[in-house]
Amino acid sequence: MNEKVFRDPVHNYIPVDNPIIYDLINTKEFQRLRRIKQLGSSSFTFHGAEHSRFSHCLGVYHLARRVIGIFEKKYPDIWNPEESLLTMVTALLHDIGHGAYSHTFESLFGTDHEEFTQKIITDSETEVNAVLKRVSPDFPHQVASVINHSYPNKQVVQLISSQIDVDRMDYLLRDSYFSGVKYGEFDLSRILRVIRPLENGIAFSSDGMHAVEDYVLSRYQMYMQVYFHPASRAMEVLLKNLLKRAQELYLDHKDFFRQSSPHLVPFFENQISLDDYLSLDDGVMNTYFQTWMTASDKIDKILADLAKRYTNRKVFKSISFEEDDSEKLAVLRDLVKSVGFEPDYYTAVHNNFDLPYDVYKPDSQQSRTQIEMIQEDGTLIELSQLSDLVRTLSGTIHGDRRFYFPREMLTSGGLFADSKTNFQSYISNKRFKDPKEAGQ
Amino acid sequence: MNEKVFRDPVHNYIPVDNPIIYDLINTKEFQRLRRIKQLGSSSFTFHGAEHSRFSHCLGVYHLARRVIGIFEKKYPDIWNPEESLLTMVTALLHDIGHGAYSHTFESLFGTDHEEFTQKIITDSETEVNAVLKRVSPDFPHQVASVINHSYPNKQVVQLISSQIDVDRMDYLLRDSYFSGVKYGEFDLSRILRVIRPLENGIAFSSDGMHAVEDYVLSRYQMYMQVYFHPASRAMEVLLKNLLKRAQELYLDHKDFFRQSSPHLVPFFENQISLDDYLSLDDGVMNTYFQTWMTASDKIDKILADLAKRYTNRKVFKSISFEEDDSEKLAVLRDLVKSVGFEPDYYTAVHNNFDLPYDVYKPDSQQSRTQIEMIQEDGTLIELSQLSDLVRTLSGTIHGDRRFYFPREMLTSGGLFADSKTNFQSYISNKRFKDPKEAGQ
Amino acid sequence: MNEKVFRDPVHNYIPVDNPIIYDLINTKEFQRLRRIKQLGSSSFTFHGAEHSRFSHCLGVYHLARRVIGIFEKKYPDIWNPEESLLTMVTALLHDIGHGAYSHTFESLFGTDHEEFTQKIITDSETEVNAVLKRVSPDFPHQVASVINHSYPNKQVVQLISSQIDVDRMDYLLRDSYFSGVKYGEFDLSRILRVIRPLENGIAFSSDGMHAVEDYVLSRYQMYMQVYFHPASRAMEVLLKNLLKRAQELYLDHKDFFRQSSPHLVPFFENQISLDDYLSLDDGVMNTYFQTWMTASDKIDKILADLAKRYTNRKVFKSISFEEDDSEKLAVLRDLVKSVGFEPDYYTAVHNNFDLPYDVYKPDSQQSRTQIEMIQEDGTLIELSQLSDLVRTLSGTIHGDRRFYFPREMLTSGGLFADSKTNFQSYISNKRFKDPKEAGQ
Amino acid sequence: MNEKVFRDPVHNYIPVDNPIIYDLINTKEFQRLRRIKQLGSSSFTFHGAEHSRFSHCLGVYHLARRVIGIFEKKYPDIWNPEESLLTMVTALLHDIGHGAYSHTFESLFGTDHEEFTQKIITDSETEVNAVLKRVSPDFPHQVASVINHSYPNKQVVQLISSQIDVDRMDYLLRDSYFSGVKYGEFDLSRILRVIRPLENGIAFSSDGMHAVEDYVLSRYQMYMQVYFHPASRAMEVLLKNLLKRAQELYLDHKDFFRQSSPHLVPFFENQISLDDYLSLDDGVMNTYFQTWMTASDKIDKILADLAKRYTNRKVFKSISFEEDDSEKLAVLRDLVKSVGFEPDYYTAVHNNFDLPYDVYKPDSQQSRTQIEMIQEDGTLIELSQLSDLVRTLSGTIHGDRRFYFPREMLTSGGLFADSKTNFQSYISNKRFKDPKEAGQ
Repeated sequence: MNEKVFRDPVHNYIPVDNPIIYDLINTKEFQRLRRIKQLGSSSFTFHGAEHSRFSHCLGVYHLARRVIGIFEKKYPDIWNPEESLLTMVTALLHDIGHGAYSHTFESLFGTDHEEFTQKIITDSETEVNAVLKRVSPDFPHQVASVINHSYPNKQVVQLISSQIDVDRMDYLLRDSYFSGVKYGEFDLSRILRVIRPLENGIAFSSDGMHAVEDYVLSRYQMYMQVYFHPASRAMEVLLKNLLKRAQELYLDHKDFFRQSSPHLVPFFENQISLDDYLSLDDGVMNTYFQTWMTASDKIDKILADLAKRYTNRKVFKSISFEEDDSEKLAVLRDLVKSVGFEPDYYTAVHNNFDLPYDVYKPDSQQSRTQIEMIQEDGTLIELSQLSDLVRTLSGTIHGDRRFYFPREMLTSGGLFADSKTNFQSYISNKRFKDPKEAGQ
Repeated sequence: MNEKVFRDPVHNYIPVDNPIIYDLINTKEFQRLRRIKQLGSSSFTFHGAEHSRFSHCLGVYHLARRVIGIFEKKYPDIWNPEESLLTMVTALLHDIGHGAYSHTFESLFGTDHEEFTQKIITDSETEVNAVLKRVSPDFPHQVASVINHSYPNKQVVQLISSQIDVDRMDYLLRDSYFSGVKYGEFDLSRILRVIRPLENGIAFSSDGMHAVEDYVLSRYQMYMQVYFHPASRAMEVLLKNLLKRAQELYLDHKDFFRQSSPHLVPFFENQISLDDYLSLDDGVMNTYFQTWMTASDKIDKILADLAKRYTNRKVFKSISFEEDDSEKLAVLRDLVKSVGFEPDYYTAVHNNFDLPYDVYKPDSQQSRTQIEMIQEDGTLIELSQLSDLVRTLSGTIHGDRRFYFPREMLTSGGLFADSKTNFQSYISNKRFKDPKEAGQ
Repeated sequence: MNEKVFRDPVHNYIPVDNPIIYDLINTKEFQRLRRIKQLGSSSFTFHGAEHSRFSHCLGVYHLARRVIGIFEKKYPDIWNPEESLLTMVTALLHDIGHGAYSHTFESLFGTDHEEFTQKIITDSETEVNAVLKRVSPDFPHQVASVINHSYPNKQVVQLISSQIDVDRMDYLLRDSYFSGVKYGEFDLSRILRVIRPLENGIAFSSDGMHAVEDYVLSRYQMYMQVYFHPASRAMEVLLKNLLKRAQELYLDHKDFFRQSSPHLVPFFENQISLDDYLSLDDGVMNTYFQTWMTASDKIDKILADLAKRYTNRKVFKSISFEEDDSEKLAVLRDLVKSVGFEPDYYTAVHNNFDLPYDVYKPDSQQSRTQIEMIQEDGTLIELSQLSDLVRTLSGTIHGDRRFYFPREMLTSGGLFADSKTNFQSYISNKRFKDPKEAGQ
Repeated sequence: MNEKVFRDPVHNYIPVDNPIIYDLINTKEFQRLRRIKQLGSSSFTFHGAEHSRFSHCLGVYHLARRVIGIFEKKYPDIWNPEESLLTMVTALLHDIGHGAYSHTFESLFGTDHEEFTQKIITDSETEVNAVLKRVSPDFPHQVASVINHSYPNKQVVQLISSQIDVDRMDYLLRDSYFSGVKYGEFDLSRILRVIRPLENGIAFSSDGMHAVEDYVLSRYQMYMQVYFHPASRAMEVLLKNLLKRAQELYLDHKDFFRQSSPHLVPFFENQISLDDYLSLDDGVMNTYFQTWMTASDKIDKILADLAKRYTNRKVFKSISFEEDDSEKLAVLRDLVKSVGFEPDYYTAVHNNFDLPYDVYKPDSQQSRTQIEMIQEDGTLIELSQLSDLVRTLSGTIHGDRRFYFPREMLTSGGLFADSKTNFQSYISNKRFKDPKEAGQ
């Protein structure tokens, strides 16, 4: 086919010259990714970060294509070009099963976006599956096996999913670009110069150690500065409380929800078909919330109020707390309740932690995902053996625990004047940390 | 108040230290702009251009603030600092009345986003209005009068709306950044060094002529390369045909539309309240289309099919034609009809033209909006007198006429085999231009 | 050979995998380009623009390599890969004959940097020649013939030298980057997508018209804003007057110049060997000036003073004048003389003009260098036929005439108080334009 | 005065509106910085890094001006605006005493660029001193005392010189920009938002911890990847050996050196006046080397050969070694000698180490330079207490020891065939690390 190109702010031109890739992009399942934001609630904090999973997935495909181009040219003995299409396709489709606000849905309704990724790829009803079968009857399952890490060739698996894969490489650059911070930038050109296929995996030439180290640090910084931002998490807990409330109301108000938010009903009933799942996107969810916000005063004040808060970005405030602060939190919840806010829906605890770099423990069950460096004599050495900084991050969990509550608890005047005083003096006395709401 | 900042990819930090500005940003009417894409259908062509009007409006406010800061410091005798808040507020709110797909709605339903901007600002029911009245009872009307150009001080009016205003400056930079092209970039720092208030307007020091000229050329390039892109316009005509079909079906299927797309009903009935208007955003519209797509097979095949094409980005193809080609177009419409596509909904004519720079004609009714340069001796001279290039663009209309039709007309095989041949040979014989679909 | 890379701020990595290219870079003649600034006196105005011809020449090689890579892959029937090495080598060496302050030297001593380029390539004494002959005995002459446009295959000639060649493409991007202006940026990726070899030349697909138009406009802007900057030209006229003075003093002070500035003597005597020529670089010239500045008070006050002014950047001031102002300039020269400045050395006239785009005139002698666009039907059309803006620039000469004089003429107090008044009132009365010294 | 601006690639516009600053920039001592490269030999490895100390010093001034502007506005009670001019002037002049290849000169001739900085500022013969005295008779000494850390107000001292000062902030950004790597970039905007004056020093708000941490890591990366690059160090050792040889030859060849390299003679004689010092710049040094290269065959073959190698970038090769490898190095030196290269001039040991972050030890003599963070309750905490990563870098010395030798030792054929084999097999057997020459 004639080469097509997509103009991309991160990678400039993204060329497509394989009809399978092009036709996959044009399936309805892939086009649907245009309607799902890559960073979910983060765009409420970083207003530029409104980019979609569509743009990220194209970027991941593009990086896979670049890496493969290098492997085919520089390592023809180690890389089998017959794996190339599989790698590019999997890169493109690795997130195809993401839904609106996936993480919240998963914790609330027990869905699993990776399971839906598998279904979209292997279910004969999808357009994606139809395109994939044009390669070979078995191709959809090959793609699925790469995604669930069971594909035998670990070169392909690790390119798509490991601690330094094309997915992470794209999202660090992309999320930096759109959020307007620079923390996620790393030296992609140098990484591409030192990446190498092994017999059964991926490694990096040790003279690129500092470039790889810098990548690990960039990832850490993005978690600290963007992904774990307290204000974004405030929107996530609000969303979760809102959906939890809706689910609880569902039994007594089936008609209301069937009419106002039909595609959520299967989730409430825990009978989710692929079609149901694919029907939900950011716009559909927001439309439901807007309906709840205006139409549900008769149904439930809390539902309506939470929907309004979410839609209009009335963000909860928060404090960070320590692991053994549970008694103090109980006091705070009581204070919140004392002014009329139901704590189950107006407060939340949110823990965000990340393992910036994870060293393989030979006796553990987990698959081997640490970053391997190739030394001059051909032996492999694990990255944290070479880098003090990476070793510092290894196995250390970073993040914090936060307690969320309505902004009104800190506002003077009105109904809440007294308890506000109580609330505020309590968090001062107990020396809770109350960081400024970052980003704004 | 403590200064708050918004991290912006285009301007880095956008500081807010005025509580009126901050509270306006937090109104529900302003937060709603997060749910409306700045470039509408263009993101179907430039996938990075998914930024919202929210981000643009913050940027316009920021540029207004920067210009005013310069005026207050460098030209205290000419610029009245009492106009500063008005200017910043108007910059922030100038697009508050934009709805989803405004241009299509305006041409189809006769709405006017500027009229809704006026309403949101002056209607006592809105949160925006409540905040504005805290400045003074008359303040909302002052803001409204700047937007409709009736405000007496033309310094303020021209900063907000003229051929080189803070609105255009932000959108050129922003649309460039997010679409990933560089064509809209210009030398903002230099423009800010040479911009000056006049007694009754805005001008630029003539030693910045080349920077201003470059700005005009950048704007021209963005029109040619991004805003007028044939594929984006294909999505616009598809959207228009879809909504037109819905409106025509409404009379006979009121229940269906009341249930599936309640907030569109007032538009079909031509009785649009402010609340109705504000209820529509991109997500709501897309949700309606998804409902039509799946639920309306019983209602109307064309509606369902067009909704599917729009949702899944099945873009129409197009050719450009000349003003006197109407007979040829009639032939093409007949050929489209001959294979079963109703031409009223499956074809369209779309003309896109822009006047990249418009010289003031003293005898015309229009307000004076050309760009004035101040020479060393203090006299003013209109930009196109100094720049051959701007003069070339002056009053010249750029753009083209395109005829859109289903992609199937060019596909071989299937039902359309014969007429496809006819269609394709006809457009070849008649030497229609058929440029490659840009962007991809 | 193993691929080597050069880290380049403009093109990121510049790979070299051909030993001929690598060995050419390591010749002493090529390394010498590190000691010659790309923009000569412009770095006195744009202090970032201190980059060398070495960096530019690597960039030109890199662009040639990219274009050839595209031609080999996309147009194997039209581009002969046997021309590829020749093209890359010529790109690398096209400026090898540039000396320190070439333009000033050429106008003063009648040298010609293109002639020295030919010599360096073909003279059997050079390291460059030795490397080139490893390709074939005739190879140096082939390279030389591309540079002097006599090589039969115009594809190669036009890639290296035409109105849109790899030389111009690199210097626009590079000079923009280092000077810190953005005016020279253009859409390189798109240009590389639409460039095509013809049977006997180079052309661009017409759907890239706006990208090519933008390139022409960027080039125009760089001339207007950077290359023609009055302050840079002030340093050029000062340098020229300084060297002119030295040459005139030479006859009476041979010993002084032989000792203080040995490598200039051959220029004064008009017997310049290749070795002499290659011995001069920016640092050597500046060293001579510093010697003249301190040691020559006994020889000549004017020489010492001009050397000081140049070394310490005491830039002349200037006014622009019209073609028929020669009588007025005579008055100004007299005023300069009246306070003790010898006008032949303390004033100068400098005309800077450029033809931003030059249409081929079929009856002229010049070689065909306009930009050709390929239309969909395969026919060629010259760019200015498609672009109003380029047509406006075509054949129009842009630039201005300036009269330079000592800054002291505008300073109050001291010796010059009275004549200053006269000088200043004269230029005011005669309405000379006296633009602010740009850049600072 | 009217504001003047310098166009800067890193900071865009650098405004100057104080006549003292402007006149300092125009002194001959400051203009001389245009002739000294910021990174010395690094431009032989990173060819873009040809920027001068002039550009860096302007940048440092600019950052000082920005910080002060923030302090004056946000902390009027803590920052005394009477210190502002002093701070900006010192920022501008902090490197005024740098000479060509300062570090090599200092280790060889015992000069001290900080001592010359003091002299240039306080010596009544300099133009700089004359400008400074216009502020007050004591002003030059105030500036000097900030530079030598004896000025009582530590706010000023730490802004100019501490682990996070305006000097380091500019050079990280600038060296990144010009070398074309991104490692030195950090979030300047955020640093400027969190920097605060203390009663007697500078600190950073603790909610900016990650931005400061990122700055420390960026600095570490620049050392590892750019400043310690083996190829740049190869040029430094070559330069040092060359100058050492010259110095040793001086006694027997005074006439030759007086004529060929007059401004070096005072260094050979260890009687260096300020004028002597200021006469040397990069161009003067290179001119001398070029003279030695061609003219000195009769004097000394080694001098001529080393001068050629330096001028034409014939870079030494190197291996890294361990602290206790001295016996092995002796073997290598013997092998180098066995083929006719005098080891004292053709080999070298070069150790490069840096302390990326240095925690204050209360019992040590050193001044307090660690980075202090201000917590919400107002108490100070040292950065490495908050950041695991910074603590990892604290007090850890990074870098390596390298042994340099002629590239010919690894070349096959010619005179060196046998010893080459010996040399190469020895370094293989002994498992010396022989990293590829980075950068190329």
